[in-house]
Amino acid sequence: MTSIFQHLERAAAGDRVSLHSVLSALRFNADGLIPAIAQQHDTGEVLMMAWMNRESLSETLATGRVCYWSRSRGKLWRKGESSGQHQQLRSMALDCDGDTLLLAVDQTGPACHSGRRSCFYIALEQDEAHITSSPMIDPDTLYGGTDGQR
Amino acid sequence: MTSIFQHLERAAAGDRVSLHSVLSALRFNADGLIPAIAQQHDTGEVLMMAWMNRESLSETLATGRVCYWSRSRGKLWRKGESSGQHQQLRSMALDCDGDTLLLAVDQTGPACHSGRRSCFYIALEQDEAHITSSPMIDPDTLYGGTDGQR
Repeated sequence: MTSIFQHLERAAAGDRVSLHSVLSALRFNADGLIPAIAQQHDTGEVLMMAWMNRESLSETLATGRVCYWSRSRGKLWRKGESSGQHQQLRSMALDCDGDTLLLAVDQTGPACHSGRRSCFYIALEQDEAHITSSPMIDPDTLYGGTDGQR
Repeated sequence: MTSIFQHLERAAAGDRVSLHSVLSALRFNADGLIPAIAQQHDTGEVLMMAWMNRESLSETLATGRVCYWSRSRGKLWRKGESSGQHQQLRSMALDCDGDTLLLAVDQTGPACHSGRRSCFYIALEQDEAHITSSPMIDPDTLYGGTDGQR
């Protein structure tokens, strides 16, 4: 059977398809989750990767405010609900085989719970690792001392 | 117990740490894999997301040629080995909780098996989906008719 994603490989820029047909073919993992990469829309900086379930994806498309699924807390995670550091959705794209999302967002302040703009701050090289950025904000200020809340 | 990643949250830009201590704390999933996002180093375009195991990560750091783990083929996947569309590693970063990699790469031609520069070409909006780019190269040319080889 040819999947919708195999069909779309041959599509041209501007071709349209029903949202329902794409969403119903999404390839969630065994836990019902799909990885979502958040990229700052104007600078191109990759801020973080988190996970969405079907409900958080629908809510994000409907409201334009990014909502993930928190695996550690087992509930919807409206980004910024405790830190105030929201993500406004600018656009969303699905990849060729329907199992990864890329979100172009407008991030308020730091995306990372450590107080840094991006979560990707541990550089790995052939023979050492080093830290590439310092926190913009003390995480104790972000969360009022409730570590781990985002 | 405090993990190395909790410790590094408070580190400052430029702080160094042993590569071994970071690599040995990497949080692979139950299949022994970690997601790796590939971003074109100069334009910032997010090209694809794939998976690495410990061996493909070590090979990538050692050789500077990006090597993933192919889940569908169950073996190391040296990006471009059949298509010629290699990825040269420019730098690699790990995220705050040690479970996602971000690779800055120099991608030769299309990263996507469909012949497009990026795998993220299906835009999802509130009420429809549409295709945002056309193939740069016919995939039959890339793979000589052997679909699915990358």
